[in-house]
Amino acid sequence: MITDLKELLHEKNYTYIKSMLNDMNSVEISELLNELDSQDSIITFRLLSKDQAAEVFTELDSEKQMNIVESSTDQEVNRILNEMYVDDMVDFIEEMPANAVKKILRNTSAEDRAFINQILNYPEKSAGTIMTPEYVVLKQSMTVRQALEYINHNGVDKVTIYTCYVTDAEKRLLGFVSLRMILTSDLDAKISDIMDEDVIYVHTLDDQEYVSEIFIKYGYSVIPVVDEETRMVGIITVDDIIDVIEAEDTEDFQKMAGIAPIEEKYLSTDVITLSKHRIIWLLILMVTSTITGSIIESYSEVLAAVVVLNTFIPMLMGTGGNAGNQSSTLIIRGMATGGIELSDWRRVVKKEFVVALVVGVLLATVNFIRIMVMDKVGFTVALVVSMTMVLTIISAMVVGGLLPILAKKLKFDPAIMAAPLITTIIDASCLIIYFNIASKILTL
Amino acid sequence: MITDLKELLHEKNYTYIKSMLNDMNSVEISELLNELDSQDSIITFRLLSKDQAAEVFTELDSEKQMNIVESSTDQEVNRILNEMYVDDMVDFIEEMPANAVKKILRNTSAEDRAFINQILNYPEKSAGTIMTPEYVVLKQSMTVRQALEYINHNGVDKVTIYTCYVTDAEKRLLGFVSLRMILTSDLDAKISDIMDEDVIYVHTLDDQEYVSEIFIKYGYSVIPVVDEETRMVGIITVDDIIDVIEAEDTEDFQKMAGIAPIEEKYLSTDVITLSKHRIIWLLILMVTSTITGSIIESYSEVLAAVVVLNTFIPMLMGTGGNAGNQSSTLIIRGMATGGIELSDWRRVVKKEFVVALVVGVLLATVNFIRIMVMDKVGFTVALVVSMTMVLTIISAMVVGGLLPILAKKLKFDPAIMAAPLITTIIDASCLIIYFNIASKILTL
Repeated sequence: MITDLKELLHEKNYTYIKSMLNDMNSVEISELLNELDSQDSIITFRLLSKDQAAEVFTELDSEKQMNIVESSTDQEVNRILNEMYVDDMVDFIEEMPANAVKKILRNTSAEDRAFINQILNYPEKSAGTIMTPEYVVLKQSMTVRQALEYINHNGVDKVTIYTCYVTDAEKRLLGFVSLRMILTSDLDAKISDIMDEDVIYVHTLDDQEYVSEIFIKYGYSVIPVVDEETRMVGIITVDDIIDVIEAEDTEDFQKMAGIAPIEEKYLSTDVITLSKHRIIWLLILMVTSTITGSIIESYSEVLAAVVVLNTFIPMLMGTGGNAGNQSSTLIIRGMATGGIELSDWRRVVKKEFVVALVVGVLLATVNFIRIMVMDKVGFTVALVVSMTMVLTIISAMVVGGLLPILAKKLKFDPAIMAAPLITTIIDASCLIIYFNIASKILTL
Repeated sequence: MITDLKELLHEKNYTYIKSMLNDMNSVEISELLNELDSQDSIITFRLLSKDQAAEVFTELDSEKQMNIVESSTDQEVNRILNEMYVDDMVDFIEEMPANAVKKILRNTSAEDRAFINQILNYPEKSAGTIMTPEYVVLKQSMTVRQALEYINHNGVDKVTIYTCYVTDAEKRLLGFVSLRMILTSDLDAKISDIMDEDVIYVHTLDDQEYVSEIFIKYGYSVIPVVDEETRMVGIITVDDIIDVIEAEDTEDFQKMAGIAPIEEKYLSTDVITLSKHRIIWLLILMVTSTITGSIIESYSEVLAAVVVLNTFIPMLMGTGGNAGNQSSTLIIRGMATGGIELSDWRRVVKKEFVVALVVGVLLATVNFIRIMVMDKVGFTVALVVSMTMVLTIISAMVVGGLLPILAKKLKFDPAIMAAPLITTIIDASCLIIYFNIASKILTL
């Protein structure tokens, strides 16, 4: 596909490209454009029909969007913006450098400009920044007939007409009514009689993660947004929320691997940004893990007496780290989506303790047999290693389960309590357990 | 709320409970019911209005659903099922034991029963298992007026009326038309003239993960499902897809922590299931990590000569593991959502190598200074440790970036290549690098 297009561009066969683009979906066209170099993408973009141009533009990477804005006249920019929904416009403006933003704002209506400026002032990742003002508002006193007429005249440039909102003179939200309800009601019925007053809404300052939880909980496709005076100011649609859910999960994956969240895609992130976002935690963990070194040093007599103890350290620490990692992952994800609350901490500790006992004893048994059969280190060393295994697994799972909850209690993000940090803690406790048991049993 | 309800139930103040429930949202009612014991929840459920009962039932935990089915007459079960959408019915049936399923199927219409049986035969997690047959089908030859009449008569029990599908006599999908388009078109216009033929669909056997990618890519709120003969058989709605996305992400979190995926919520999973799903990888990794032990043993002469080398092993292996974990997480998530393809492997390796060089040299420098200042081990040991650091970070990041791609190439799930497995590989290579550099530089 992309090679065909490149060839056609090279041949300047623009008539054929035009007809080809006409048969394509705007999502697919934008994928093609994103792969072309900036000049080819600008030429191709200019071959799009007016209807397609805005849709394709919305889907483009911000770099391509900027190329197009830079190479277009004010009038052309104006034409694209007029066809865009305001929330898409905001997404696009947020990525643009200051001089491009000026060119864009110059080309939007006073009304849109006011709204865009208002949105740009909301805190990052708040409901206010992902809402759009293009919704249908009905009055209580309207009849179904009037409502249908109103929707017919004013619905064209709304993001959705399938859920309409009812507000009073002060724009306060009174209820909602679905288009399905309107269509199946008597033409003379009053909106006040058919509207549903049990309307679930969010506030402009609510975090987008909270908004996505509301969407998941209630399964709606659109949710209204109100300001501090509970006046309705926008709506959020489910397709934007899917992006939020994916982005929040990606952020959690990154935090749990000790990476400061990177917003851009991996392939388009430069090496300096990648290095910066990755070195912070590596540095912190490198320094804290020197603790394990000093523990080993302080028990150097034990190690000197029974040198073979050395060879089991990586296996014990590794298994402990993996066990703790499992616990923290289950609890962090459980708090994010699975209904684990702070008040459940006792249940979590109890569960982790029992699981650790089952898993620990089984692992220790396998380990004991393996050492006796394969290594020639004697019964007591095998016993020391296996006892350490059980106790390490118990402490790893309980710590791994408890720390994320503690983090949330202290208003930290539980995700930063994941694998890397917990592993460091577990490494230290594993060594202390190991050397203490060794000193006792081997009577050193 | 829950304590109020328990008290009211104790006082048998059913009239008040009824009016209280009447003012509540079905999602909130189901949350309350899920917290009550089985007897109280059955009593409360019976106080619900007919309209609410089916909606609340859909949202309940499967345990509560079973309690209610068991305590209800066939007629009562029938009444609930009649009000449910077929996809919700399937979700619920999938969780029920065989005897409950019999009671349920006995109470559904022949048509629904045929559809349910058909869905239960699709492979697990395929598009077929999450679709529902309740969509609006229009004919090409209809006028807008006829379509509106048809929707009015047949739209009541459809999941959505906002996107209607157009099929031919053999039920083959020809296109779709939005209700918005229908409402804004001339009453005498033909459906064939206003329908959009560029319809994106999925197949019954497509994996639900692929279906969610299609939803994310195109941003639709509903997508049609066709069978092998491209006959339309159902639709999938975006609210079900949100659940799929969350479930798939949870599965990836678990796999990446070395947990065999657990479908149930943490708090409702029993200890035996939790232990089973966690011990598999712990066992595998425990056994493979004995390799590190044998490496240490085989270099015991080096260690005996310079005992202090011992104390840096956990720090080196830990930092390597963390670095590799960062890489694998970025690449696994990038392949799942960020557009990294198999063909990008060269770019990934190049990027990881450069990042590793930057990060490795910085970490090694900090490490060198720290050792020189704080530990009293001399220049050469500090040099050995710092050189190992650079090489370990490079191998960790390149391996961490490459293995998930290799896994996908070999049709394995990249997520299982994450932290635990990669760490084991990195541990071994870290030790080999360390001891080789030590032997050379310390001329042992």
